[in-house]
Amino acid sequence: MDVTETAGMRDTVYGRQGELLDLLIDYLRQPSVSATGEGFPAATQRAMRELELAGLRAEVWETAGRPCVFGRADGPPGAPTVLIYGHYDVQPVGPSDLWRTTPFEPVIDAGRIWARGSGDNKGQHYAHLQAVRLLREARGGLPVTVKIILDGEEEVGSPNLEELVSRQRDALAADVVIYSDGPVDNSGQWCVKHGVRGVLGIGLHVRYADRAVHSGNFGNVVPNPAWTLVRALASMRDDDGKVLIDGFYDDVVPLGEADREALRGLPPDDSTLADFGVAEMDPAYGDLSFQERLAALPTLTINGLHSGDPQRTIIPHEARARIDIRLVDGQRPEAVLERVRAHLARHAPDVVMTQEMGVPPARTPIDNPFTPRIARAMAAVTGQPPLLVPAMGGTLPVYVWNQVLGVPALGIPFANVDENNHGPNENLEVSRYLDGIAISMAVLSELAGTVAR
Amino acid sequence: MDVTETAGMRDTVYGRQGELLDLLIDYLRQPSVSATGEGFPAATQRAMRELELAGLRAEVWETAGRPCVFGRADGPPGAPTVLIYGHYDVQPVGPSDLWRTTPFEPVIDAGRIWARGSGDNKGQHYAHLQAVRLLREARGGLPVTVKIILDGEEEVGSPNLEELVSRQRDALAADVVIYSDGPVDNSGQWCVKHGVRGVLGIGLHVRYADRAVHSGNFGNVVPNPAWTLVRALASMRDDDGKVLIDGFYDDVVPLGEADREALRGLPPDDSTLADFGVAEMDPAYGDLSFQERLAALPTLTINGLHSGDPQRTIIPHEARARIDIRLVDGQRPEAVLERVRAHLARHAPDVVMTQEMGVPPARTPIDNPFTPRIARAMAAVTGQPPLLVPAMGGTLPVYVWNQVLGVPALGIPFANVDENNHGPNENLEVSRYLDGIAISMAVLSELAGTVAR
Repeated sequence: MDVTETAGMRDTVYGRQGELLDLLIDYLRQPSVSATGEGFPAATQRAMRELELAGLRAEVWETAGRPCVFGRADGPPGAPTVLIYGHYDVQPVGPSDLWRTTPFEPVIDAGRIWARGSGDNKGQHYAHLQAVRLLREARGGLPVTVKIILDGEEEVGSPNLEELVSRQRDALAADVVIYSDGPVDNSGQWCVKHGVRGVLGIGLHVRYADRAVHSGNFGNVVPNPAWTLVRALASMRDDDGKVLIDGFYDDVVPLGEADREALRGLPPDDSTLADFGVAEMDPAYGDLSFQERLAALPTLTINGLHSGDPQRTIIPHEARARIDIRLVDGQRPEAVLERVRAHLARHAPDVVMTQEMGVPPARTPIDNPFTPRIARAMAAVTGQPPLLVPAMGGTLPVYVWNQVLGVPALGIPFANVDENNHGPNENLEVSRYLDGIAISMAVLSELAGTVAR
Repeated sequence: MDVTETAGMRDTVYGRQGELLDLLIDYLRQPSVSATGEGFPAATQRAMRELELAGLRAEVWETAGRPCVFGRADGPPGAPTVLIYGHYDVQPVGPSDLWRTTPFEPVIDAGRIWARGSGDNKGQHYAHLQAVRLLREARGGLPVTVKIILDGEEEVGSPNLEELVSRQRDALAADVVIYSDGPVDNSGQWCVKHGVRGVLGIGLHVRYADRAVHSGNFGNVVPNPAWTLVRALASMRDDDGKVLIDGFYDDVVPLGEADREALRGLPPDDSTLADFGVAEMDPAYGDLSFQERLAALPTLTINGLHSGDPQRTIIPHEARARIDIRLVDGQRPEAVLERVRAHLARHAPDVVMTQEMGVPPARTPIDNPFTPRIARAMAAVTGQPPLLVPAMGGTLPVYVWNQVLGVPALGIPFANVDENNHGPNENLEVSRYLDGIAISMAVLSELAGTVAR
């Protein structure tokens, strides 16, 4: 495939934009709120039908929760297999008075499609589906074997995805996994994301009495759970932000040289801090750049802290904290959880710990064989090379591909930065949707040149 | 005065209990809620009239807030002067559905007077007023000069009392101050209280951003105010409960030998801990007894701790704590506040501190010349010597007597332990009220033997 051919793809897509938008708008009309069940089971059937309309052989894969749908369309014999992951469920609508439109009645206005699910994630995976359809129409067949899996419960943490991927390992076998979720780089530039941090959520609870007591009548007598919690937390982290839990960093796989070089090449990305009224980055981490702080380091964050009453002279009867730990490549949630447990047993035995969630991290080295081809395809469509991001700070269930299926996984997000996913007025820029279709067509074509397993 | 005479006083009081109860019940019908103004200004006039009915020359002393009333009745030339402090204002009624009776319609039932203000403090200072009246009737005059001041805003922290006492220093001049507030010892035994702890309330606040941000997308980048607050608090106190603020203990006046001996003589008083579900006293203070922890040591208590959201994976944008410090003899709120300020400036400069309240501590040495006479009078009425308590854990504005007026101040509480002051179903045992009158008669008679200034 040469540049002329890629430019032709983009022209084709933009030439058919009326049809491509109508199809997406109709797909967005179908509610699919995994948290509440709104729109199910119709949403599953609708997702399967969309796979079929794109020319894939589709089936519903039941799980203990909401089903996934899976589709497959073969390329030429010996061609590599590309597995595309997306999710057809959406977040709840939230307070409807904050929306300027009706969430499941999509509207195109100011160059954007306004609807729940437009950015997260229907508009993004639908771009891949339309890319498959257009490629078949244009070439009479696909350059690679395409498999598409659409998750039905990503917005509730994909609790059954790992089990499903283990069970359907053969059906899912692929050379590379592509997912398009979340926004492009904060600068607005297209990018390829190579990893995500994992997350481990932990609740901490200390309780000494049935009820709060008078701080004068019982001060120094009745033990104070707020002090115990404060001392437990303080024992976990030093002034330089270093986590003091024994063995916390032991399993961290350092970034490779190519990843470090890519990090150094990224533009500074602290402009958004001013939007929050934050003057400077956390001084605990010294000179580390914005992206290094996200890609190279795990976190230990206090999400919430609650005890007593700020208006009353009492000794509280209980104290609670919620912390989350963002994990980087090599760290396993279970192992880190055990280290936190051991730390508390030694330093703060009165603190009761509860695990709230755990998702492993995932990272594909930036010097893998697929990234250069994907980057070339994207550059051909968009006119400039995408940013190569070693890892992002947030968490997605990418580990099921890297670790369970054992396949490199790469993220090529299509959504605009202000897609308002999870909030009111979710939207997707029309041009991002159309460019996403052209990018997917170019990427699938370019990946034909890689060697299958 | 001999024991026969004292026993005669008790008989007189019990013989006239119908009349003494009717008078109190009528007094309790007058609402006097300083926090809301309910019952004012009538409540002030009513309190003054009660002083007059007891035979005192009474006047209203205006303040910047609710007025005090003051009365005086002279004893023989050269007799010592006893100043009695009480308060005629009461707490708000609170949720009326929790009351079994109507708060300002007093009811006698099960040996108790049920009404707002019965224990705190009308029933207690009214016992002194009736003692003055009965003593005059029985003896044709008073054995000592009696001055009574009734505060109109004790329940809102007596914000104008210090200024008033300074201004009325001459009118208030006395040899000893007696106050009857709060309950008798937790064991139910009568007691003489020699001190109270002071209190200093401080708010702590850290804020870095306008709003909470995603803990994955910004973890290690946006500073976390909860960590700053936790580390600031942890820097203030070690594992043994010792406060690490420079100079915190410098001004503490240690208990004298007589006070220590009195402390050792007190019964163990940790039985109430089981009521709160607390298994053992705070281990940070080792072998110290319940009373030593209250009388000899200042506290540093976290009253409340709030930051973020325990349900969300966020970095909070602000964190707040409220602490109170209970001060012991010698410590001044302003000086301790400055030491906290200096500590934060050195260890946690991002923490903004606000002072919320400050009341100095007060202590009268247990080996003062009045306690033995008071104790002898009480023993004659009740049949056993009172407990001598060097200091209680809570806070009352006793410093205005010890420090502003410069007179020893002694507490002889009359209320039962379960008086439910500040709560619903406030009550005073009839026998405590009647014994209180007899005790006051005996105490005033005994104090005639002390030497005036």
